[in-house]
Amino acid sequence: MQVDTRRQGLLEITGQVHDWVREQGIAAGLLTIFCRHTSASLVIQENAAPAVRRDMEAYFDRLAPESAGYEHDDEGPDDMPAHLKTALTGVQLSIPVINGMAMLGTWQGIYLFEHRTSPHRRTLALHLIGE
Amino acid sequence: MQVDTRRQGLLEITGQVHDWVREQGIAAGLLTIFCRHTSASLVIQENAAPAVRRDMEAYFDRLAPESAGYEHDDEGPDDMPAHLKTALTGVQLSIPVINGMAMLGTWQGIYLFEHRTSPHRRTLALHLIGE
Amino acid sequence: MQVDTRRQGLLEITGQVHDWVREQGIAAGLLTIFCRHTSASLVIQENAAPAVRRDMEAYFDRLAPESAGYEHDDEGPDDMPAHLKTALTGVQLSIPVINGMAMLGTWQGIYLFEHRTSPHRRTLALHLIGE
Repeated sequence: MQVDTRRQGLLEITGQVHDWVREQGIAAGLLTIFCRHTSASLVIQENAAPAVRRDMEAYFDRLAPESAGYEHDDEGPDDMPAHLKTALTGVQLSIPVINGMAMLGTWQGIYLFEHRTSPHRRTLALHLIGE
Repeated sequence: MQVDTRRQGLLEITGQVHDWVREQGIAAGLLTIFCRHTSASLVIQENAAPAVRRDMEAYFDRLAPESAGYEHDDEGPDDMPAHLKTALTGVQLSIPVINGMAMLGTWQGIYLFEHRTSPHRRTLALHLIGE
Repeated sequence: MQVDTRRQGLLEITGQVHDWVREQGIAAGLLTIFCRHTSASLVIQENAAPAVRRDMEAYFDRLAPESAGYEHDDEGPDDMPAHLKTALTGVQLSIPVINGMAMLGTWQGIYLFEHRTSPHRRTLALHLIGE
């Protein structure tokens, strides 16, 4: 699955993931989403209040700030913080599937967390095993 | 599986998880635990010294403090820190199963990390594939 | 799979993992790597610039510093920071497998993140399901 990001931050992909699962025609099993990058990650977070996303983006900017004297800055000041945020949040999620649906909680959404400033095309490997 | 939390912090659930795996009658496979919330997470940590748990709880309180000027505080000062701690630690774990047992290391315990101050009933989706 | 670490920091294990997957003779499926410890973790990170690894190691040393007044220090000053870094980065990774290869992105490498100062023998449980 490909996702085009336009800016740094959280981009909800719950709908696309649900669509993909439905197309597989598997009623019960295990869904795995794997983000094939080192500067974008996957997070499950609240899908209701937009303020949660803004607070979370600002928090990770403070936790892994741009001007921290990194040795590695080949691709600009957002390069190394992007790797750090990816390590902190992770690139993989596995979610049980029942009745053809990933069993997210009521308030859970799946987000691609883009850590680079410029737009990127991100590739997610999706896998579903079951019957 | 449902878990009732009484306070903020780490609650060991290793015993309940082992019991559930045993009941499935599957000798070898992959166990997945998925926490269906955005303010509680799953952590594998030391199961021996209680001081590790106290240090870890205090550490995450410092790392994602309550009074940090968050925009989102609909449900109180512990609301946004709970979402941040959940993003930092994650809501899913997969563990290989051999001889009907999740292959934890000697010192590893599975913990539900409750990030809200008040008691909550938390739902975990458990999945086991194998034969 | 056993991995001998010589010092604190990131140790690439991508080659050993690819070898293990190849030996299973499974073309398509899901690979899971589980680190059976509470003071070493698994991270997917950039496999090109060594400076990224040095920056990441220094960053986590700052994020979970040794002298922070921890109650638990039975095994020395690197003991509690090791547990915290493990909780922050995680002990499990699942990666889809296609054509007998874990589907890592071009720049992704799999690293064992050793958080103790002294050398350790670390055990990883590997699991591959598919056909």
